[in-house]
Amino acid sequence: MKISAKEAAMLLCAHDRILILSHKNPDGDTLGSAYGLLRALRSLGKTVRTQCTDRLPQMFSYLADGVQQEDFTPEFVVAVDVASVSLLGDAVTEAYPNVDLCIDHHHTNELYAQKTYLYDGASACEAVYEVICEMGVSITPDLADCLYTGMATDTGCFRFSNTTPKTMRLAADLMEQGARYAELNRLLFETKSKERIAVERMVLDTISYAADGKIALICISQEMVKESGADESELGGISGIPRTIEGVEIGITMREKEAGGYKISVRTAAYADASKLCAAFGGGGHIRAAGCVINAPYEQAKTMLLEEAARFL
Amino acid sequence: MKISAKEAAMLLCAHDRILILSHKNPDGDTLGSAYGLLRALRSLGKTVRTQCTDRLPQMFSYLADGVQQEDFTPEFVVAVDVASVSLLGDAVTEAYPNVDLCIDHHHTNELYAQKTYLYDGASACEAVYEVICEMGVSITPDLADCLYTGMATDTGCFRFSNTTPKTMRLAADLMEQGARYAELNRLLFETKSKERIAVERMVLDTISYAADGKIALICISQEMVKESGADESELGGISGIPRTIEGVEIGITMREKEAGGYKISVRTAAYADASKLCAAFGGGGHIRAAGCVINAPYEQAKTMLLEEAARFL
Repeated sequence: MKISAKEAAMLLCAHDRILILSHKNPDGDTLGSAYGLLRALRSLGKTVRTQCTDRLPQMFSYLADGVQQEDFTPEFVVAVDVASVSLLGDAVTEAYPNVDLCIDHHHTNELYAQKTYLYDGASACEAVYEVICEMGVSITPDLADCLYTGMATDTGCFRFSNTTPKTMRLAADLMEQGARYAELNRLLFETKSKERIAVERMVLDTISYAADGKIALICISQEMVKESGADESELGGISGIPRTIEGVEIGITMREKEAGGYKISVRTAAYADASKLCAAFGGGGHIRAAGCVINAPYEQAKTMLLEEAARFL
Repeated sequence: MKISAKEAAMLLCAHDRILILSHKNPDGDTLGSAYGLLRALRSLGKTVRTQCTDRLPQMFSYLADGVQQEDFTPEFVVAVDVASVSLLGDAVTEAYPNVDLCIDHHHTNELYAQKTYLYDGASACEAVYEVICEMGVSITPDLADCLYTGMATDTGCFRFSNTTPKTMRLAADLMEQGARYAELNRLLFETKSKERIAVERMVLDTISYAADGKIALICISQEMVKESGADESELGGISGIPRTIEGVEIGITMREKEAGGYKISVRTAAYADASKLCAAFGGGGHIRAAGCVINAPYEQAKTMLLEEAARFL
């Protein structure tokens, strides 16, 4: 059942011993939502903890600054930024099969919770902010940092097309309430690990162009990953590189699998349909971003991709 | 003499045949301000043109979409985002030695104009927006694009520490008034030329680390620039790369000069004083960003820099 921000606030106010769940492979939005809501509820004197099937990534450790997690049997379970129960991870779902409240912003939310506040906007943190305001909690700088984190990370620091005037205004409010946005932006958007820089350098060496520069293709091999020492979290966004090149309509990234063969990511700029291109290889996705798998040696897979891609220009 | 936004608006309303000047090496803020103000004044029926000593860069050509420049003898001269008369360029200064009004946001503005509206904020476009609102002009999408351009480019798309809550709210207003922010952000912040990608690849190959990774150094040689085909405007921001690496306190960029020797850019992250480091080589600048020139062969210059830099950790 869908409810409003005010009803979600009333539900939270009426309960204690609250468990807040984040989705697996947690990002800034699910974590910012969870720690923001935890801080708000604790300021009302409630017993609260957060849980996620994966560890808190180092880069988001500041969200939990000063937060001691307590052990208790929850009376009320809230999921934040979790569109589907499968995103909680098996162990969490087994331990807490019933989710009382979900606060989310995904159109695809499966309405698995007893009650769902489904917000139409860029980030779950915007939804949580609304709920917190309805609870009459005053926003501390630590809380502002949490909510700013989700708004900024889900919008690429207010750069992606999902950014709305409302996102900008809510972020402005948080900046006034003490969010350390300059430091956060530097940490979240400007810092790359040495390993990431190393793998990027190797990947840029593999760029090839086709169709008068309308297609660009890069490859991330197992050897590059090993040699650079980069882990999975440090490879994020690399498949976005080919499309950022001026004049490129179809950007293709070939990621060598451990067992051989390639995982393919396709990103398109303006008119080519990435999902149709990937469908030709048994894959799928969205118009601007899609994927597939090709189990063939490098040169063969590359040729197949470039030939197919040319048909979409 | 300093005046308010309202007084600036009244001055503009009281005049016709208005010339708007931008600073040399024009950026998104001076150009967005100029074309935004031109569109506003023309909507009031005035005769207006813009002028800049340098050509409109290709990437900002959309600012002038549909704008025909007319030739006339100006009755009133306005400079936008121009802190010093020297930034107008000699030819412009000679032709128009008297600037009637300056709309700017640089603390260092030399108050060279008859009247100056000096705005305290991230971009001149914010100041121009205030003036335009005082004139009672309604904001069209084209006008919103111009003003959004300056706000976004001067703040690195709302990422830099100069961003204020006010910047965010004014940008939100422009988004509602039709600014094509998704397209603009893609054009301004996500697109790199093939030449830029090529030179970046070569530059990343030169990274060396010192002092346990607290110092990172890159080099841009004349050969790289030639081989990649990159022009000066495509090299912007490269000197920011070393400092973006995790753990790096001092990022150094050596740019080989045509005549030999190196132009050095130093960027520091948190505590090292870049200006003092550069002063050791006769240069200077700010705490976080400074420069100097070292006329020595590559290995010698690099050794000197790394030794001196280590003293600032």
